[in-house]
Amino acid sequence: MQESKVDVLIIGAGPAGYMAASWFARIGINARIIDKRSTKIFVGQADGLQPRVLEVFQSFGFGDRPLKDASIGYEACFYEPDANGKIHRVGRKPEGVVGISRFHGSVIHQGRIETWLTDFIDEWSNGKMKVERPILPETLEIDESQISNPDAYPVTVGVKKLADNDAEPEQYGSKIENGLFRQFDWDQDRNGAVPAESREIIHAKYVLGCDGAHSWVRSQIGINVEGETTDYVWGVLDIVPITDFPDIRKRCSIHSASDGSIMVIPREAGLVRLYIQLKKTEHIPETRSAEERENDQKQGKTAGPRVDRSKITPEAILETARKIFAPYTLDVAETQWFTAYQIGQRVAAKFQKLERVFIAGDACHTHSPKAGQGMNVSMMDTYNLAWKIGHVLNGLAKPDILSTYEQERRKVAQDLIEYDFKLSRLFSGKPGEISTDAFREVIDNGAAFATGCSVNYDGSIIINKPEGTDSTIPYNSPLAKNVPIGMRFADAKVVSQCDGRPWYLNDRIPSDGRWRIILFPSDFKTNVSLNNQLLDIGAYLESSDSFIKRYTPPTEKIDSIIEVLLVHASSIDVVEWDDFPHAFRPRYQDRRMDYWKIYADSESLREISGQAYEKYGIDRKVGALLVLRPDGYVASVTAPNTEGVSQVAAFFDRFLIPL
Amino acid sequence: MQESKVDVLIIGAGPAGYMAASWFARIGINARIIDKRSTKIFVGQADGLQPRVLEVFQSFGFGDRPLKDASIGYEACFYEPDANGKIHRVGRKPEGVVGISRFHGSVIHQGRIETWLTDFIDEWSNGKMKVERPILPETLEIDESQISNPDAYPVTVGVKKLADNDAEPEQYGSKIENGLFRQFDWDQDRNGAVPAESREIIHAKYVLGCDGAHSWVRSQIGINVEGETTDYVWGVLDIVPITDFPDIRKRCSIHSASDGSIMVIPREAGLVRLYIQLKKTEHIPETRSAEERENDQKQGKTAGPRVDRSKITPEAILETARKIFAPYTLDVAETQWFTAYQIGQRVAAKFQKLERVFIAGDACHTHSPKAGQGMNVSMMDTYNLAWKIGHVLNGLAKPDILSTYEQERRKVAQDLIEYDFKLSRLFSGKPGEISTDAFREVIDNGAAFATGCSVNYDGSIIINKPEGTDSTIPYNSPLAKNVPIGMRFADAKVVSQCDGRPWYLNDRIPSDGRWRIILFPSDFKTNVSLNNQLLDIGAYLESSDSFIKRYTPPTEKIDSIIEVLLVHASSIDVVEWDDFPHAFRPRYQDRRMDYWKIYADSESLREISGQAYEKYGIDRKVGALLVLRPDGYVASVTAPNTEGVSQVAAFFDRFLIPL
Repeated sequence: MQESKVDVLIIGAGPAGYMAASWFARIGINARIIDKRSTKIFVGQADGLQPRVLEVFQSFGFGDRPLKDASIGYEACFYEPDANGKIHRVGRKPEGVVGISRFHGSVIHQGRIETWLTDFIDEWSNGKMKVERPILPETLEIDESQISNPDAYPVTVGVKKLADNDAEPEQYGSKIENGLFRQFDWDQDRNGAVPAESREIIHAKYVLGCDGAHSWVRSQIGINVEGETTDYVWGVLDIVPITDFPDIRKRCSIHSASDGSIMVIPREAGLVRLYIQLKKTEHIPETRSAEERENDQKQGKTAGPRVDRSKITPEAILETARKIFAPYTLDVAETQWFTAYQIGQRVAAKFQKLERVFIAGDACHTHSPKAGQGMNVSMMDTYNLAWKIGHVLNGLAKPDILSTYEQERRKVAQDLIEYDFKLSRLFSGKPGEISTDAFREVIDNGAAFATGCSVNYDGSIIINKPEGTDSTIPYNSPLAKNVPIGMRFADAKVVSQCDGRPWYLNDRIPSDGRWRIILFPSDFKTNVSLNNQLLDIGAYLESSDSFIKRYTPPTEKIDSIIEVLLVHASSIDVVEWDDFPHAFRPRYQDRRMDYWKIYADSESLREISGQAYEKYGIDRKVGALLVLRPDGYVASVTAPNTEGVSQVAAFFDRFLIPL
Repeated sequence: MQESKVDVLIIGAGPAGYMAASWFARIGINARIIDKRSTKIFVGQADGLQPRVLEVFQSFGFGDRPLKDASIGYEACFYEPDANGKIHRVGRKPEGVVGISRFHGSVIHQGRIETWLTDFIDEWSNGKMKVERPILPETLEIDESQISNPDAYPVTVGVKKLADNDAEPEQYGSKIENGLFRQFDWDQDRNGAVPAESREIIHAKYVLGCDGAHSWVRSQIGINVEGETTDYVWGVLDIVPITDFPDIRKRCSIHSASDGSIMVIPREAGLVRLYIQLKKTEHIPETRSAEERENDQKQGKTAGPRVDRSKITPEAILETARKIFAPYTLDVAETQWFTAYQIGQRVAAKFQKLERVFIAGDACHTHSPKAGQGMNVSMMDTYNLAWKIGHVLNGLAKPDILSTYEQERRKVAQDLIEYDFKLSRLFSGKPGEISTDAFREVIDNGAAFATGCSVNYDGSIIINKPEGTDSTIPYNSPLAKNVPIGMRFADAKVVSQCDGRPWYLNDRIPSDGRWRIILFPSDFKTNVSLNNQLLDIGAYLESSDSFIKRYTPPTEKIDSIIEVLLVHASSIDVVEWDDFPHAFRPRYQDRRMDYWKIYADSESLREISGQAYEKYGIDRKVGALLVLRPDGYVASVTAPNTEGVSQVAAFFDRFLIPL
């Protein structure tokens, strides 16, 4: 039997798995990704991309692809019955949260998104990292004696290669016994007899279980899920509609008088997704014992009555939709996909075992698709995790940082479940029971959460908040009043000092595995003591005991571990290039100067700047010193002087490993 | 010997040839493109992309690629000697013309640009159209008796396939006898003895000679060039500089006290291009007879003293540059390319023969590279020509439209030559002779021309200007005061009626071969008679005698020849979807509705609109009716009523062929 070693084995090529593979490819980690299906997804499934994920795509360099291909949501409308019971428009508002991000929530089918990630993985791994399929994992063992040995491969996974036709997924249609494409419904014993040469033993340093709601990895490491399934049943239709409904290309919430509710989500290529509450559904007869039902629940399946999804057809869903849309007509030029689901909210009790095996995505949290969150939160799970594993594998950071994954992401999962619980119940509520005002209030309050931009990580070894900070509200240093520590660094427009080009600052901070220091040295040019502070920091950064040199091998470029950027508040007209210390305009080993580290929060000759200091709440006469994690979250805010620099040095000392 | 037929044969795969192939691929024309070199360009050569060409790239769908890859020019600086003879900055201004385009002049090497076009050709021809190389044309004949037969292939071109190593171009370096990469210096007799199976006779309906300054096609059809070479010699260096010059990442013009002039053009990947006036150059001894010299001049070569370019080395050019840069230092981390050239300005006497063989690009016009125009004007030549040939080949339009190519583009070539003549002489002028003010005045006056956005085509069969209009100044209808007829349609932001998404209007008008009607029906919702005008136009467009139905086969989509768009000036809050006639929200054969033809010049919930009516000079209470050519030039402006529509019908009748 074949045996092999790999630093990271990713099990499952859904959004969480693809995102993990993308990060590992980007930072050059030796990883493999396997999936039990023989093909990728072509239609249906998840489709919503929240602004935060679009920011991450942009930081990887392909944020333009959704802009070209996806349907972008700009407006939302609300419909309710009038006195005669006919639905009519009662409200129109901006979709999402105005100004929270330069990106807008967008919709496109999951297969296309996976194509973008596949292309990215291809590019950065030079074609070496590909999803290996169809491969089914059979065994997983952890050698606990080797857990603290950084050179060991303590996780052993036995896998088998399936014949292609055994792993062809039904993506939609009558052949699926319960009307749902069971993407991650693992079926380890389906194909037991395979030749020995089709089996492989993989020794891994880390394993990521990105294998969905019924996660096999989760079950192997004995993690239970908490939560339950409700009795609400919703149908999903992806159609090209023929309708006189006037807002069919806007996101709409429609509550009818007595026929239930619909959510309208315009999609790419003329498609529209409808989420439709199904009022009459049949259950399958209960045949499980109490013990079996309890066990099902621990595995993320429902313990309660199960809907008979074989009775749910696209025609039946459409018929319900027609009643809700009345008096508007609804016909179909093309049906691309459909499914039905029972709403449930569940969270895994733990997200890892021994910090060697991790689970992510649907394996950690399942909920209704209504808020368009699932794929997003799944991708953000591994976006949070993979760079940390990369840091430990590369000897940059202590393994202690790995515990922040569960700490940071389980809280997000719980917030998500809570939001979805509220939204689902409101949405499924009977007319009259729930007021539109209450409904819209939940949507408004949840809107920031739904953008993904309001995630707020607690203080930890890698998030420098004062002890005892209330973790339920954002914490800002007074030096940067709108830069909450533990939240993602928001964007602002600045001007490149060397050539006057306007930039979104975050476009100069790509996701490439590096930490960033952003010095805001204030309007230094007009004040001698501020200018001296800048010179002092420059001198420190170039000195032999700077934290840069402490972690950066002398053979590497000086900005390869921690990149230093500067955004000043002086007029670009009075500042000259040699006003800046060489730490901010370094020359590399090949004598090239790096001109792209110095920016001005100043009007440019071509475009007005974004008033970055104001946006960040940084005083133009004081400044600030920011530290950003490789995933773009704010790790620390201190003063722009030698004391602040010392605090940054102490912060890095907590978890980075000196040369 | 092999014989074949093709609708269009393009000879020469430089910028003009690639652009022609792109258009033909986009609109599905049967074309081939051959080149005598065995490889594409990797370094150096042309590098400037003007805003108009970037607009065209955007209209093809890849305007994002320069934004990602190229160096974009935002600022320009001017340096002159001070009282002590040391250069210092005397001015700083925006590069280009603020507001003329959403794109800014950009710089990147020609090879990368050709890659974008190659990818585009690949995509639209499904991989069928590739540059065939190395292939050398040997004979060209026109059968004049077949000129007016649309089914004939009256042009016969004999070609031979070269061995790869015979056609490897020297792109730079000592092996080139005169220091220049002679990209298009045809050498038809170099490889005379090839086997018969390497020869092919190609019968073409049309031939495009895109084969450079010493065009073989031009010589075959007996067209002379007019103009002369000067004695000014300039060196070009592409380097990664090491310098303390503070504006090295801005476009700079430097006049030194006594060492000549330099232009600084920042490039991609840390490169900077320097254009350096060389004061001391040696000439090669004159060995030609008077007759030979005259003949050389007709072929676009110099009749006067020829510089001995073998004496010009990168070291010598750098040495001159150092003197001009003093007191700033200049050293080099890497030299990527260099060349030297004698400035000359020449235009071909004609651009076609019998409207079956056309020349384009450097075959039509050569000049100094200083204004960064060559590649751009070359691409715009075939961008002007190819869709017209496509129209005639597809039976859409009468061959009469082909005469507009020479009419429109020869004027541009002459304007270019005139601009370059002024600029070159100013730039090469000795310090003291030319005032900075005079220099900057030429640059300012020429800036609009240099963007490519000010090209103004005369009235013709396809440009509907009143008779006797002064062709030297833009002509506007009073209905659209800022939409000059014959110029490219400028961009403005509008909001999509169906979903509130902000768009650049031109992003809804891609280069896909279609004519466009843009109806500006004014603030129709507030005025009954304006509303009736809109309904009348809708009724006409849907009627059986509309100009749409006159030219569109009933089996094709109704918008496949002429697309109708609408930009209204009513508030998006008061307008409903069914206020618009079905002509503007058509259903296709498959019953799908097209939601993307109706736009509002209105504030959206998410972004302020671009105030399109104001920008176009269209009265919000009157409106206008525009016709745009497939290349985005404004063909006609009439009133937004049935009379205006009749005028449009009469306009199309001039050149379109009814079913």
